[in-house]
Amino acid sequence: MLDNLVSRQVRLKSRPHGIPQADHFEIVESAVPDLLEGEILVRNAFLSVEPAMRGWVNAAQNYADAVAIGDVMRAFAAGEVVASRNPDFAVGDKIMGMLGWQEYSVSTPRAIRRKVIENDLPLSLSLGVLGINGVTAYFALTEVGMPRPGDTVVVSTAAGSVGSAVGQIAKLMGCRTVGIAGGAAKVAACLEEFGFEAAVDYKALDFEERLASACPDGVDVYHDNAGGWITDAVLRRINKGARIVVCGTASVASWEPWPTGPRPERHLLNKAARMEGFLVWDYEHRYEEAVARLASWVRDGSLRYREEIVDGIGEAPGSIAALYRGENFGKRLIRLFPA
Amino acid sequence: MLDNLVSRQVRLKSRPHGIPQADHFEIVESAVPDLLEGEILVRNAFLSVEPAMRGWVNAAQNYADAVAIGDVMRAFAAGEVVASRNPDFAVGDKIMGMLGWQEYSVSTPRAIRRKVIENDLPLSLSLGVLGINGVTAYFALTEVGMPRPGDTVVVSTAAGSVGSAVGQIAKLMGCRTVGIAGGAAKVAACLEEFGFEAAVDYKALDFEERLASACPDGVDVYHDNAGGWITDAVLRRINKGARIVVCGTASVASWEPWPTGPRPERHLLNKAARMEGFLVWDYEHRYEEAVARLASWVRDGSLRYREEIVDGIGEAPGSIAALYRGENFGKRLIRLFPA
Repeated sequence: MLDNLVSRQVRLKSRPHGIPQADHFEIVESAVPDLLEGEILVRNAFLSVEPAMRGWVNAAQNYADAVAIGDVMRAFAAGEVVASRNPDFAVGDKIMGMLGWQEYSVSTPRAIRRKVIENDLPLSLSLGVLGINGVTAYFALTEVGMPRPGDTVVVSTAAGSVGSAVGQIAKLMGCRTVGIAGGAAKVAACLEEFGFEAAVDYKALDFEERLASACPDGVDVYHDNAGGWITDAVLRRINKGARIVVCGTASVASWEPWPTGPRPERHLLNKAARMEGFLVWDYEHRYEEAVARLASWVRDGSLRYREEIVDGIGEAPGSIAALYRGENFGKRLIRLFPA
Repeated sequence: MLDNLVSRQVRLKSRPHGIPQADHFEIVESAVPDLLEGEILVRNAFLSVEPAMRGWVNAAQNYADAVAIGDVMRAFAAGEVVASRNPDFAVGDKIMGMLGWQEYSVSTPRAIRRKVIENDLPLSLSLGVLGINGVTAYFALTEVGMPRPGDTVVVSTAAGSVGSAVGQIAKLMGCRTVGIAGGAAKVAACLEEFGFEAAVDYKALDFEERLASACPDGVDVYHDNAGGWITDAVLRRINKGARIVVCGTASVASWEPWPTGPRPERHLLNKAARMEGFLVWDYEHRYEEAVARLASWVRDGSLRYREEIVDGIGEAPGSIAALYRGENFGKRLIRLFPA
């Protein structure tokens, strides 16, 4: 069966400095090999696009090894098992894992994150609000942000897939939520779809004044997906004992050369505040706990999400750059086959 | 009795920008007023000098209100009760508190930190290793640094009164300790007196290489009294899950204008590391717990300290600037009367 099956793959062609562009990748047709004992073949229905991919392809030190030139681009994907030589996986199982930017993945259990068991909900959610994004939001907020009811929780990239979930979970926890997003449409989504009490456009000339007005009692928790000058502005308004969760640095275009900015030490010292990095990998063993809670909130309508789905693997190479241009609205996915 | 008693006081004469110099203060003779009900009169034996005093007199936002022009300089001091109209305090009691840079203090219990009960040890220790410095070291390390046995703990201003205690307590906790200090004499003290496994001179041209050699397994805990470029160098070597305790910013001469430096967010994110400010005031309710432990370590010789004692209130005005020039060696105290 596999003899004649051809899979299109997106491979890394050259090493980007800064944000990966479409021409750092190439699309190659590759014959799907026969399965070895223990392997499964997955037909990917959705490929994921996320900001962290910049780090995965850059040579600069990161939390994961860089993708090698010529390798299929590392990516989460969700699909269906179409052939199996592993007793734990049956044809028809829906799975999500590190399956790469390709139409078909020959995979072992090591690369599989989980079987998707929420069959009443769309498979695509396993890559977004019920995937790394939702799980990130859940643990970053509850384990590092540690909000108390009544806290002011500020979220950057608040209309995005992680930020919108952070805001909604913080609201479920009794917090006052303030979103930071770019442009009128995203600000409106923060207020109307995601229930933020206030939302501030970072593109506004008077951003810092608007932020101050939105946070009359200061900032207790800052979920930071942005970094850079947006973070600098929030740091100037933190309260005693504030927790700053460093979850992403979307506003920083490149770390080569390493950018400079106002030193944060004095803010942290004066307020006995904490700035802490969050890596969702550290919570892998608690993934199902988060997904179960997130799914129940999706079902009862208290956790809303947006997806931006484009069709065809040809959309993949340019999709990271589009993400950093802020063009996406909600979780960006590439659909290859009907789920 | 008080009618004829005159106390010399060091008052703030003008508002410093940056590090306070001798001429920002003036010494004034002042008649000691009669005691009101509830007050006590303390003859100060030792006045304390500490880096935090810079913040207490600067106008820039800080964790405490600025000392007003014309006020006696805020300072810890230790002395003996020489008159009392408060039933909780008897003549002869040794006390430590926020008594100001002056020979005699008319005080209420509000300003008293504690009665000094370690009468087998010198009273001066209540301002150093058994005072704010020791208590800071104890809680900053155990509550924020949270070292585990085998961790590499790096300490800046390691020969100073806080840093030397942090290093020794970390060693008691089974850690490998690396001190950062300025000049050969302080580096030698780190190694010979305070038991650091390695010590690095930040004035060396190849400081960063020396730091790397001293930390072959990276950095798990960084107790930071320095800030600035010393901190930048340590940040580049942190391990997964590292804790950076921001306890002081001695290397930063001024926060007006606010200095810039390499952004730390990416280090914190890649390592899921934490950078957290520490204010000893937050542990006031646990002060005696720390002093009791510190005193037992001083008695059994496992916690060593240095004092640099100068005589006479005339030494006070220039003493903060001397501290920032790095001239002091151990806890700097001004002795007014024999204890």
